[in-house]
Formats: sequence, C-alpha cells, structure tokens
Amino acid sequence: MATTLSPESTSFADAFPCSRKVHVDGPLGVRVPMREITLEAPNPPLRVYDTSGPQDIDVREGLPALREPWIRARAVEALPTRDQALGLAMPPALRREVVRGRGPITQMHFARRGEITPEMAFVATREGMEPEFVRSEVARGRAIIPANINHPELEPMAIGRAFHVKINANIGNSAVVSSIEEEVAKLRWATLWGADTVMDLSTGADIHETRQWILRNAPVPIGTVPIYQALEKVGGVAEDLTWEVYRDTLIEQAEQGVDYFTVHAGVLLRYIPMTAQRMTGIVSRGGSIIAKWCLAHHRESFLYTHFREICEIMAAYDVSFSLGDGLRPGSIADANDAAQFAELETQGELTRIAWEHEVQVMNEGPGHVPMHLIKENMDKQLAWCGEAPFYTLGPLTTDVAPGYDHITSAIGAAMIGWYGTAMLCYVTPKEHLGLPDREDVKTGVITYKIAAHAADLAKGHPRAQARDDALSKARFEFRWRDQFHLALDPPTALAYHDATLPAEGAKVAHFCSMCGPKFCSMRISQDIRDAAAAQAAAEGMAEKAAEFRAGGSTLYR
Amino acid sequence: MATTLSPESTSFADAFPCSRKVHVDGPLGVRVPMREITLEAPNPPLRVYDTSGPQDIDVREGLPALREPWIRARAVEALPTRDQALGLAMPPALRREVVRGRGPITQMHFARRGEITPEMAFVATREGMEPEFVRSEVARGRAIIPANINHPELEPMAIGRAFHVKINANIGNSAVVSSIEEEVAKLRWATLWGADTVMDLSTGADIHETRQWILRNAPVPIGTVPIYQALEKVGGVAEDLTWEVYRDTLIEQAEQGVDYFTVHAGVLLRYIPMTAQRMTGIVSRGGSIIAKWCLAHHRESFLYTHFREICEIMAAYDVSFSLGDGLRPGSIADANDAAQFAELETQGELTRIAWEHEVQVMNEGPGHVPMHLIKENMDKQLAWCGEAPFYTLGPLTTDVAPGYDHITSAIGAAMIGWYGTAMLCYVTPKEHLGLPDREDVKTGVITYKIAAHAADLAKGHPRAQARDDALSKARFEFRWRDQFHLALDPPTALAYHDATLPAEGAKVAHFCSMCGPKFCSMRISQDIRDAAAAQAAAEGMAEKAAEFRAGGSTLYR
Repeated sequence: MATTLSPESTSFADAFPCSRKVHVDGPLGVRVPMREITLEAPNPPLRVYDTSGPQDIDVREGLPALREPWIRARAVEALPTRDQALGLAMPPALRREVVRGRGPITQMHFARRGEITPEMAFVATREGMEPEFVRSEVARGRAIIPANINHPELEPMAIGRAFHVKINANIGNSAVVSSIEEEVAKLRWATLWGADTVMDLSTGADIHETRQWILRNAPVPIGTVPIYQALEKVGGVAEDLTWEVYRDTLIEQAEQGVDYFTVHAGVLLRYIPMTAQRMTGIVSRGGSIIAKWCLAHHRESFLYTHFREICEIMAAYDVSFSLGDGLRPGSIADANDAAQFAELETQGELTRIAWEHEVQVMNEGPGHVPMHLIKENMDKQLAWCGEAPFYTLGPLTTDVAPGYDHITSAIGAAMIGWYGTAMLCYVTPKEHLGLPDREDVKTGVITYKIAAHAADLAKGHPRAQARDDALSKARFEFRWRDQFHLALDPPTALAYHDATLPAEGAKVAHFCSMCGPKFCSMRISQDIRDAAAAQAAAEGMAEKAAEFRAGGSTLYR
Repeated sequence: MATTLSPESTSFADAFPCSRKVHVDGPLGVRVPMREITLEAPNPPLRVYDTSGPQDIDVREGLPALREPWIRARAVEALPTRDQALGLAMPPALRREVVRGRGPITQMHFARRGEITPEMAFVATREGMEPEFVRSEVARGRAIIPANINHPELEPMAIGRAFHVKINANIGNSAVVSSIEEEVAKLRWATLWGADTVMDLSTGADIHETRQWILRNAPVPIGTVPIYQALEKVGGVAEDLTWEVYRDTLIEQAEQGVDYFTVHAGVLLRYIPMTAQRMTGIVSRGGSIIAKWCLAHHRESFLYTHFREICEIMAAYDVSFSLGDGLRPGSIADANDAAQFAELETQGELTRIAWEHEVQVMNEGPGHVPMHLIKENMDKQLAWCGEAPFYTLGPLTTDVAPGYDHITSAIGAAMIGWYGTAMLCYVTPKEHLGLPDREDVKTGVITYKIAAHAADLAKGHPRAQARDDALSKARFEFRWRDQFHLALDPPTALAYHDATLPAEGAKVAHFCSMCGPKFCSMRISQDIRDAAAAQAAAEGMAEKAAEFRAGGSTLYR
C-alpha cells in the first residue's frame, strides 16, 4: 500500500485553473472552505466540495489549529507528549499538547444529548444540510465525524449515507526510499485531487515520527491499522502480540491525533476454518495477523476479548472505529461466503457495544464481489450493523484485469455507493502488482471521485447534478475552457484536447475536435434549436387542440 | 471518432506471452479459433474466446475466405465489382467477386426454417452452446449473427443476451494523417485486444477504398453509418441528401461486405421538437443530420418512409440493422426523456418490420444515464423491441470527468450488460476531447472487456468464472507469471509488477510486492491453511454432533 512519490507537488493553481478557495460562513461561527470555479459570463461560478486544505503551508509549521478553541471548551485534560521519551527531534510547531477527555467528549455523545458541535455545523455547511440533521444522523450512528481531539488541524467531514459519498486514499512509507517530506507530499497530493480521508498504512522504521508529521499537516481525517505498528514492536512475529502491546499502541496513536482505527475484532476463532477451502484464503493483512495469533494460541483474539477496553480508550480521544473486515473475499469465487458474513454479523455485535460507549463506528466491507452479489452486502450490513456507515474496498467486480483494478473496482464502488455505502476506499492501477507512484495515486483518487459522484447522482444528492449540468451546458455552448475547469481533472482534459487541436483558436471553436465541423452534432443541434422551438410551439398548440377534441371538447372532465 | 496510430503493431506473441492459437472442431466441419493460455504444471491450460483473427497476414493479400464455401452453397448470384468503375487500383487479392441473394439468404431466414448454418455452428462452438440453441435465438430475433455474404473472411460471432457480452471499437480515418495501412493496423490492434466488432466511422476522401482494405482484412463484423458517406456525396449539406443517394450508398457498402448498418430511421419529425429544451440537444451525428433534413423539408426522413426498401436491400446481402438512437441523451440532465423513449418505441416498430423481411436487428441505446435510470432503458428496450439485442454506448454515469470517460462509461456499461445488453460500444479516454491514439484505443478496449466480463459473471455465463478462478488461484499460489498471462493485458500487468520488483527472482517470490514478506496476508493465510483445515475437520465433527443432539438425537426426521 506504500507509495513512492517525488516531493515536488502540483499546486492548487496548477491543478485547478480559474478556481479559487472561498470560505462560507456557517452556524456557530464556522468558516468552511469551498472551491469556486469561475465560468465565462453570464454563467455564475460553481462552488464545489473541497478537500485540499490550506495551501502554501510549510510542512515544518503544520496547518492552523482550526478546532483548538472548540476542543478546549470541552472536558479535556492535558497530558505530557511522548516526543522526548521517544527521543524525537520534532520541529517545535509540530509538537502539540496532548489532551484526553475527562468525561465523555465524542461527537456521538454530544449528538445524543442534543448538542450541535462546531464540527457538526462545519459538516452541515460543507454538505448543504441542516445542522440538526447532521446531529441526528450522528446520534443515531448513521453517520460519523471522525475527529480526534488531538487533531485540531482537521477540517471536519462526515461519513454517512445521507451525505456525499466519500473516498479514502492509502499512503504509507516504503522501507526503501521514502523521506518524511515525501509522505507529507503524498498526503497533500491525494487531498488536492479529492481524497476525503487518508489512511497511513506505514510499516517499518520512523512510523511514529512520520505519523506526527502527517497529522500536523492533515486537513482530512487520518486512519491507521494499529496492529501494523504493534506487530513491528514484537519483531514481526504475530504469535508474540499481546493485549498490552496493542493497548499501548492504541493510546500512542490516539494521543497523536489519529481519527479512526481499523480494528479487526470480528475475526473470531471459529470463523477461521471457514476460510480453509477458499480460493484465496484470508487476504486482509490485519485479518491474517489476527487469524495466525488465534490459531497459535487457540483463543479468541485480544481485540475481541478486550473490546470494551478498546472502546474506553477510543472514547477518551474520540477516535472512531473502522471495524475491519479481516475475512473479506479476495476473489470472485469467495464472495459472500460464510466466513465473510459470519464476521459481518460480529461487526454488528461490536458496533452496538461501541455505541454503548458512545464511540463512533463504521464497518469495513469487501473486496472482490461480482455485480449480482453486491447488493446483498449492503442489505446485510444495514440490517446487521444498525445502519452504521459502510466503508468498502471497491468491490472489484472481476479478477481478470490486474493493471486495471482501479476500473474493475470503480464499477463495484459506484454501485455499492448508490446502494448506500458511505465511503469508498480507493484502488490504484498497481493493486496486486506493486507500489503506486504519484500518477497511480492520482488515477486512483480521480477514478474514485467518479464512482462517488456517480453514486451521489444516483442517490439523488441535492447538490450532485449541478456540476454535471454546468459541464454539459459548457460543452453544448462550446465553452471549452469552462469544460476543462469544471472537470475532475482539468489539466488532463486540457492536455487530451490539445493533443488533437493544440491551437488556442480551437478552444473557442464551435465544433468538437472528434468529428470536425461538418459532422458536429452539437453544432447542427444548435442550428436546428430555434427552428425546432418554433415548431414545438406550433405543434404544442395543435396537440392541445387534438387532445381537446379527443377528450370530447369539454373543458372540465 | 477517428484515430491516429502508428502502423507498427504489437504481435500476438508480444501481447499474449505463453498463449497459442488453437482450433476447436465443431459441428458441420467448422474449426473455431481459441486462445490457449499455458499455465505452470499441474494446472491445465485455459482456453479463452479469441477475436484476434489469423496472424501474420499481408494486408495486400487479405484474410483467408473462411466462409466462401458456405456462401457459395446458398442461392446467390454474382455481380460485377465496382472497383473499375470507381477507378480504384486495388491489389488483385483484395478484389472479391460480389454476390447477392437470389432468394432469402439471411441467417434469420435459415434459423426460422429450422436450418443450422455453419455460421451458427461456429458461434455455438465459440460460445460453448448447443447449435440448436443458437438457431432458436436467431430465429426469435434475440440474437444476431452479423455476417454479410460479401464478407467471407469473417469468423462468425453472435450478439445476443444469452451469449458473452460483446464490445465494439470505433476506428475511422482522420482527414489529416492517415494511410490505408494505418487503418488496417488500427483494426488489427483493436481486435488483438478483444474488440468483437469494429465500426468504421471514416469520413472524407478514399472512404470506399479504405473500407475495402478493412473488410478484406477483418475477422470481425464491420459496422458503418452509411449516412456519413452519403453526406460526403452531397458535399456535406444535410438538406441535399436524397433517398436515391442514400440507397446507392447502402448497396455500395453492402456489396463490399459491411456486416451491419447504423440506420437512424427512428428519428421522426414530431420527436425533434422534444429535444429543443434539452441540456445538450441532439448529440448523435447521424441523428442531427437526419433531424436537420427533416426540419428543412418538413417531412419524415427517407430512412423512415423508405424503410421497407432498406430492408429489402439488406436482406439481399444479410446486412444486419443497428437501429440508431439519434436522440440519445448527451448529458445526465437529458437521460430517459420523452425524445429518447419516443424514438425507442419507433425502433420497436421498425424492428418488427425488419423481421418481416427476415433481416437481423439490434437496437442502439444511450449515452449518458445516471445509474438509477439505467435499468429502465433495458426494461423498455426488451418490452418495446421484442427482445432484439441491445447495443449501448456506455452509458456514461456522470458528465464531470472528461479525460476519464472510459471509466465513467464502464460503470454504466457493466451494469447495463448485466441487465441484458448484448453489445457495448467502447468509449476511450479522449471522448469529448480529441482523437484516440493507439494507447487510447487499447485502453478503451481493455476497459470494455472488463465491463463485458463483469457482466458475464453477474449474468452467470457458464464459462465466465473459469478465468477469474484460474487467475485468483495463480495469485494465491504465487504463480506470478501465470497471473500475468491470464490477465486481460499481460504486458501491462508485468510492467507494473516490474516497476516495483524488477528482479526475476521476485516472480517466484512467495510474497506480494505491495506489502513485503512480513505483511503478506496470502503467505500467512497459506501458513495457517493446514492448521485451519485440521481444526475445521475437528469442529465439523463437533458441530455435527451438536446438531444431532439439537435435533433430538433421532436419525431420521
């Protein structure tokens, strides 16, 4: 899952020509960033959801601590940082005081007692919803706002099926070539193109320090799989993992500000044999680590037996659960099998326990699933997990196209997003084959923005179609530059156009570069529009007359 | 729609290492090409559907005339070729005697009278179906075998929802830079990667000669939109089109061997005003030409008024209809509107007329459609068009991603393929922006192979999952080379793997290049498989015992 990426990064201005960042005022004094795309007059500018965060920030300074006053107003206590104990030479600005709840401080807690937090107000403005609606969704567990109180730099966002479908991008340092600056560059690159959350799947050395840099520079929620770091601490030997090592890792990461943890607590001992006859066994890293531990000790995992203690830790920092799907199918042959659904039922049990502790929860889902079996996943997750947000990896709808798994999975992702999945974990072209580079990360993010947007359209999200309409109107009116600027990836749209018709004049040409002027249906279509409109009026009259006669020529029937 | 492409072409061996062409004997003496992928022992080789045609053929010689004896056995008469009249200097081997039916000779005709043709036998062997089933599907109009009697080089294939979902690739000479050899190279490139049919959308000069070269070198059905050439004949002025010019163009192309014609006969005068208030008007080239003609003359188009004569011409050569969707939506805003569905109803009317003439028919469909409106297209087409095969362009599920419309449309294509669409017209990354180059054509074809295969899986096509299973088994067993060889695009899969782990040793490594050895779930999964299997056996016994007790410990209930 790690990426290699050169630190040089495309700027906001290069990525989105004719766009500017604006801030929309919302309730409780929140100021919410949006990207405003300027269009040719008289077309009004279009504002779109923006994940790119504050720009031009020195990575050694970190982002502004937007949420700090909100967090300070809560029942929190300060703790010493671990930097010195760990011997880390962190730039001063990246050392932040660590806080912990003295009492209940989760968004779910506030929501349940009827309180609209600034985070909820921020989300409401960002999504174009009422704050009270956001609160009620969080209270019911149908949406989460992953927002660790130690991540004040966060621009809050919601994951829930009543909101825009979100996408996650994975980053992580590669053992071979990776500097901390590179990791931050990857984060910025992914959020620039639209990643709503980023999972740091780093393994290996400097894992704590890398995460510190990432969090202090992250405008989006950061997720991790703490078992990876715990495994490093015991030298990579799964059998040597203990509850104590894992617990300390959770606290360490919670203090840094990680917003959600993937916890594979649903992998029960009795489910593991169900995978033995599978085509591809267990394909989740975390799931296989836990399975190995369970079999070696012939006991239920400490994730399951200590689940309430995990909840208590996460509640103290408002870390959200991403309940892992350690037994997800890794091939079409294994989709929707007994092992997968057994774990999903346990995810439901664990979801209810987490809610008892007022900890926010989402559930992870597959994986590899053919199209006709996708909906069953959504239906069962909704029924068994109390409508907690679903967070799926794809699913990939076929196994036969390594090198194109961003596409095999975008098909499944769009569909399951339509059915109600709240967040889609991206898949890059390198899936199953190698480490994604800079272009792969971008391709994965854009592909998943497509899937999420297609799902928003199909779900009827009230804001979704405005962008399609603006782009199609620009296309029909031969406003080429507006068409590029409204695209998910303006530089690529421009480059593809210029590959055929590079002249500046072509960008004001009233024909499409594919067909040339003579065969341009849009041009012909515009030519006939006036004539047609006139005829429509005439025929409309005639039709009305005919209807009137057919109806017996009486005025009121 | 035209492409630019360098003539140098990847060979079958380069594209598909460890594959070889085999021929499977079928009924009536047919010998059907398949591609056989050799796998590491003891895994049996896998045979897959193959569209690449005979290899290493001199384009000046053309392909072998596989169907010639079958055609000669029918009631056909020879006609003089037009080459001399047109002043064409065609290589001798590319001049073929032209034939025309003296009586009914369409595949539908033979199917209806209970006769299994060699074409049907070929298709049956290719698809793994019974010849009688193929015949019955063709007789009912639920499948077509586009096979002009002047295209003896064709390897017959079927388009119908009981068969593998097919894909079409568009080629066409660009006015600027394109030689005839390049056009043939494009054809070979598209079929090498899996295009089941190819539409030649050439406009401009040398259109007849280019088509002759293409047809004589085409192992797949070739489709055209004859109105494009007719328009060239009247100097590009739509209003000057006449039935006579169009009729002569149909005959000219039928004599050359074109297998299916897109005919926009469903664009009726009264439907045109319905497009006036659309976001993007009429976006079909053919549709806009006809609309312009209709409005200029204020009459129904000659395509509609002379439809029975068109049927008679097409019956004489067994050219299949692809009834065009001239009013398809060009934007999300226009999906499933009155204009679109009015034309679809007329397509149904025309389908029944064509069937009276025993002419094979498929119906073209959209276009731009959000996911939740896709199924209605399929349902209405099945209901209104008598289950004739549906042939859609995507549909694109959002308008916001120019540069990625192969992906926006693959989502819709996979879904509508699952719902029953028989053929998917590919979309390349350059859609809406420019002319696809060699890489774009390949990307479009592979993307649509993914969509078609995902649909085959979801429909439960009996042969589909074998390839997924073979690939996933290879993946789980760390047979890296087999994994590449089984991929839709082996060179890309190999290149992506080598980008991270180029050493030869990595191709036998028992870990995945994304996670490294310590975090490889597959390896851990294999480590635990034996232990798990043993436990499963033990638990299975215990479970059975528990069930027995729970059931009251009686042997037969």
